[in-house]
Amino acid sequence: MNQEIEKAPQVAALVVGAGQGIGLGFVRQLLEGDRATPLYATYRNPDSELLQIADSRLHCLALDTTDETQIAAVVQKIQVETSALHCVINCVGVLHDGTMQPEKSLRQLNADQLLYYFQVNSIGAVLLAKHIQPLLKHRDRALFATISAKVGSIGDNQLGGWYGYRASKAALNMFMRNVAIEYKRTCPRAIVVTLHPGTTDTELSRPFQRNVPPEKLFSVERTVQQLLTVIDSLQETDSGEFFSWNGDRLPW
Amino acid sequence: MNQEIEKAPQVAALVVGAGQGIGLGFVRQLLEGDRATPLYATYRNPDSELLQIADSRLHCLALDTTDETQIAAVVQKIQVETSALHCVINCVGVLHDGTMQPEKSLRQLNADQLLYYFQVNSIGAVLLAKHIQPLLKHRDRALFATISAKVGSIGDNQLGGWYGYRASKAALNMFMRNVAIEYKRTCPRAIVVTLHPGTTDTELSRPFQRNVPPEKLFSVERTVQQLLTVIDSLQETDSGEFFSWNGDRLPW
Repeated sequence: MNQEIEKAPQVAALVVGAGQGIGLGFVRQLLEGDRATPLYATYRNPDSELLQIADSRLHCLALDTTDETQIAAVVQKIQVETSALHCVINCVGVLHDGTMQPEKSLRQLNADQLLYYFQVNSIGAVLLAKHIQPLLKHRDRALFATISAKVGSIGDNQLGGWYGYRASKAALNMFMRNVAIEYKRTCPRAIVVTLHPGTTDTELSRPFQRNVPPEKLFSVERTVQQLLTVIDSLQETDSGEFFSWNGDRLPW
Repeated sequence: MNQEIEKAPQVAALVVGAGQGIGLGFVRQLLEGDRATPLYATYRNPDSELLQIADSRLHCLALDTTDETQIAAVVQKIQVETSALHCVINCVGVLHDGTMQPEKSLRQLNADQLLYYFQVNSIGAVLLAKHIQPLLKHRDRALFATISAKVGSIGDNQLGGWYGYRASKAALNMFMRNVAIEYKRTCPRAIVVTLHPGTTDTELSRPFQRNVPPEKLFSVERTVQQLLTVIDSLQETDSGEFFSWNGDRLPW
């Protein structure tokens, strides 16, 4: 009887929003653990550390997810080389940038900033789910995970504030629940979830870390490790749900 | 001992999006029941039946809630005549129009249509909450109710589809929960809720009525009556919640 050498199945992955923060951390740990070949990673800022990583398994692609034509073009580039992705992790998100701050109260609201939150935090993710679909139609388990946030839980909201960020994450959660339902028909092995990473020591949380107790402020490495543990334990029945870094399901 | 003649307290109300459908129905029933003097009502389309109603209690104002400067201007006009509103009902919402249809599947998604859903169904409402605030800072009970939809419930979503509409109503629900929390500090007698009207025989539902059993398709009159019953029974502890036409609380 021939005994075949057991080969780990090839896992192709894509990390979107990998230029910094949690996305970049996912790239590093997926490479370290030899968890993905090839590993596609997208970035917006060409000064990103991502582009310093020299690894033949890693393929970096420029992508601004607020532009649907760029999403379509990135997917096309991946399709030239790869017919199936097993893991897609979307880490794109904005809370503040050089010109905008989350709104503490109604009088700080303005329509353009609110629209921008939806564009970056909600619409980009669902357009990615639209275009990536052909790469998730295969017979193996596939994961489509998006970083959301517990402050995007409506039921959990007791503090208020951060209007645009909160509403755009609630919208993201709805979009991903819809994607999970549609994928059950079109990509039946795909598991679609949103993930709360916990407060992580990144640019996103930096201005707001003062009131976070040290044991609740995670390093990027710890957050990514925790989220990979959650991801690895997901079942197909978990598709369409919202999970915290410790594996708990979060309320909508 | 002098006996004063008991006078019904004067209730000033505002219905936003009163040009048609449920909003117009609210105007008619508030006038019929003599429930509001003055009654302010906003419309977008100058051909609206609203402008045919001849009633000295009714003040009609043009308003497109996607333009924040128009919201601010309408509030200023009301403030010239009235220092307090006791009831604000926001009925603005879009599901389809001449050029757009709700998306049945991912491939029908496009960024501009998604942004438009958020502009009309989510952002307009929270900008209204921003500008109307001074008129709700008084000692009487005040109500700020916005028409949402059960298909905007993430937890209730089993069918998928209608991406932009669903996500924009989830975002609306988050915005209004935030407004409820902020108003507790700034307008402590205000009750902020979102309402599911049930499927109502209006332009909004018309293309989708075929599969609705007749007993579940409400006339505008019935919907408005049911929602007024819900509104009348609200307590201050209900602020920040999401109610169905029958008074049940809906999941987020």
